[in-house]
Amino acid sequence: MSTCTLRVLATLKELEVPYEITPPSDFSEIKTPEYLATKHPFGKIPVLFEDGFKVYESRAIVRYLVNKYQGTKNSTVLIPSDVQKAALVEQFISVETSYYDGPVSKLVAQEVFTKFHGKTPDPEIVKEAREEIGKVLDIYEKLLEGKDYLTGEFSLADISHYPYTYYSFTSGHGDLWENRPNVARWWKNISERIAWKNTIAELNQK
Amino acid sequence: MSTCTLRVLATLKELEVPYEITPPSDFSEIKTPEYLATKHPFGKIPVLFEDGFKVYESRAIVRYLVNKYQGTKNSTVLIPSDVQKAALVEQFISVETSYYDGPVSKLVAQEVFTKFHGKTPDPEIVKEAREEIGKVLDIYEKLLEGKDYLTGEFSLADISHYPYTYYSFTSGHGDLWENRPNVARWWKNISERIAWKNTIAELNQK
Repeated sequence: MSTCTLRVLATLKELEVPYEITPPSDFSEIKTPEYLATKHPFGKIPVLFEDGFKVYESRAIVRYLVNKYQGTKNSTVLIPSDVQKAALVEQFISVETSYYDGPVSKLVAQEVFTKFHGKTPDPEIVKEAREEIGKVLDIYEKLLEGKDYLTGEFSLADISHYPYTYYSFTSGHGDLWENRPNVARWWKNISERIAWKNTIAELNQK
Repeated sequence: MSTCTLRVLATLKELEVPYEITPPSDFSEIKTPEYLATKHPFGKIPVLFEDGFKVYESRAIVRYLVNKYQGTKNSTVLIPSDVQKAALVEQFISVETSYYDGPVSKLVAQEVFTKFHGKTPDPEIVKEAREEIGKVLDIYEKLLEGKDYLTGEFSLADISHYPYTYYSFTSGHGDLWENRPNVARWWKNISERIAWKNTIAELNQK
């Protein structure tokens, strides 16, 4: 269920990089002294290990994967080599982190994670999150005018939007995206990619 | 006073890239329809313009500056070309965004921005923020053991810590950093760099 792991998984599949997942045995494992000392000092997942090299934080892991593997297994470009095009990918990655992640993760925390832990979502927080998401998506609607993807071409910026948007749809709030034509077209474009479909298929097998 | 602008300014000075600053006339300018349509759709600063190219979000701007100018004006390296070293820079940039920025900006919001607007800081929030910062800095203390900088060498990850840490010191909370030997050594190393001293000098001229 880890949204950060889902971001890494989608990137691995887009780049066709082989991997092996070792989930923690339970939620408490990632807070043990051993985990903090050897895996992630802030007690989070995921952590990437490759031939003795370790890197944590999903946003760092995906850039590492792009830097190392882009162009080696297939022709998918997630960060263009052109410095201006790359800057726009980074711009929309930061837009996701700064303005999108907050309200959408607030909704998902209630509708998915609270329920998972056997508790009842707070309808006031859900209502508030939906209003905040609506305002953000109104801006996205303008930004996506005449565009298939955030920067024009599919990129790591689109991938960074996958996890929380996916859980918003599975928890019955897809209307916020579908009611806005440009946003709806964008989500259709990115959610129908084979790599993302395979990511979801793997997620639902677990 | 914009911490995001300070991040960009420090990067410009490290890379010795010439620039011109055009501040908004007042706080309300960045929320006008014209500003939202032509500068930053979420109503924020800074925005970089260069020869007709525009990019917003400070974290995107600084990566653009590194990609375009690193190695052209001086030998300062902010993101190494080695993919593993670059990954560790990104790891610590994400650590700043995910765990450091939250509590430290909470403190600065009270002690600097609330005061600037003529209001009184809430002592309970200040106390809470200090406790949260202490926990984060305890982890930094371990991460910085035997190291002069977060990744071992000075990088964009250190720069990303400048703005809020600087305002924590100017508002009288430097003890949180100074009481931890490794953290204190790190802050001394980065805050004594000429580019940062020049950034502060320019800030205080305004």
